[in-house]
Amino acid sequence: MATKSRDTRARILDGAMRDASVHGIDGLTIGALAERTALSKSGLYAHFGSKEALQIAVIDAVAERFMIEVAAPAYAQPSGTPHLLAIMDRWIAWSDHPDRPGGCQLIAASFDFDGLDGAVRDRLAGWMMGWRSAIRQAVEETRDPVLDPDATASLAFGLYMAQHVERFLLGDPAAAKRASDAWYAAVVGTS
Amino acid sequence: MATKSRDTRARILDGAMRDASVHGIDGLTIGALAERTALSKSGLYAHFGSKEALQIAVIDAVAERFMIEVAAPAYAQPSGTPHLLAIMDRWIAWSDHPDRPGGCQLIAASFDFDGLDGAVRDRLAGWMMGWRSAIRQAVEETRDPVLDPDATASLAFGLYMAQHVERFLLGDPAAAKRASDAWYAAVVGTS
Repeated sequence: MATKSRDTRARILDGAMRDASVHGIDGLTIGALAERTALSKSGLYAHFGSKEALQIAVIDAVAERFMIEVAAPAYAQPSGTPHLLAIMDRWIAWSDHPDRPGGCQLIAASFDFDGLDGAVRDRLAGWMMGWRSAIRQAVEETRDPVLDPDATASLAFGLYMAQHVERFLLGDPAAAKRASDAWYAAVVGTS
Repeated sequence: MATKSRDTRARILDGAMRDASVHGIDGLTIGALAERTALSKSGLYAHFGSKEALQIAVIDAVAERFMIEVAAPAYAQPSGTPHLLAIMDRWIAWSDHPDRPGGCQLIAASFDFDGLDGAVRDRLAGWMMGWRSAIRQAVEETRDPVLDPDATASLAFGLYMAQHVERFLLGDPAAAKRASDAWYAAVVGTS
């Protein structure tokens, strides 16, 4: 029973993550998810209990997948420059995946929850802060005196978000390569 | 009567823009706006007719204000580098304004509508494309052979969005200056 319940929860979260990629984590309510996935509202309540709990569960599920698909393979590279280059490669690939038809749920949510208070915002901010710190740490490990850890971490977020908007909203097929090239130039140098 | 109706519409749009800064343009419905602003639902219907028309009216109203507060004063600078520096100065100031307690509505909407089809997305994409083209054009006017117009326009969007997330979601008080410094280094050079 416990295993079956965990399987069901995982299946629900798969659907909720896909739904949130298109409609946003802020648009994710138990009622809306029930409508859009044909799951029963009472079943969803049994698993999550509230809209906030559902939204936090989706944030955690996306972040855990991000750790597996982006952070871990980047860490598998040698520290320093190879690690930094792998971070951007994997991050860009993450934003262009069939499981995420509307792009990264967490970046979208970052703009939705930034004006709000509460547990959902706090959980999201915790994950985003953690990822930013991981990039910052990776920059420090290059021991490159020209690369400022904070400025480089901000640049990584900026290049990632620019290609996200350019690709998904503006339909620019060159956006991902442009971000990747700019990151390479910043991290390796253009000379 | 026509003037009074225009005044009322402008007042409604002021409230709707502020509401959208916190709750998002995607969260803006005639019902929600009526609840959150104490305006009558029937009055809002009389002015806008549908959720989509309301959302498009808010996008246009924000974009027009953006033209006045950001684009026009930047254009008032000499073309080339002063224009590019003013673009980022004004743009960052725009994201930190009491009328926009949750930050820029259009950047947030860019992540919300990017997975959707329809007239709201198209209108938003049109404005964003126009602003990106204006930055691209300003880069071209520097006649600086080192500055690639597309890469520099993407960098502008990226630095702007990074400081937006860092400031609003992560509470980093140094974010705006970091973006401004990075833009200065990219446009003027660090030497």
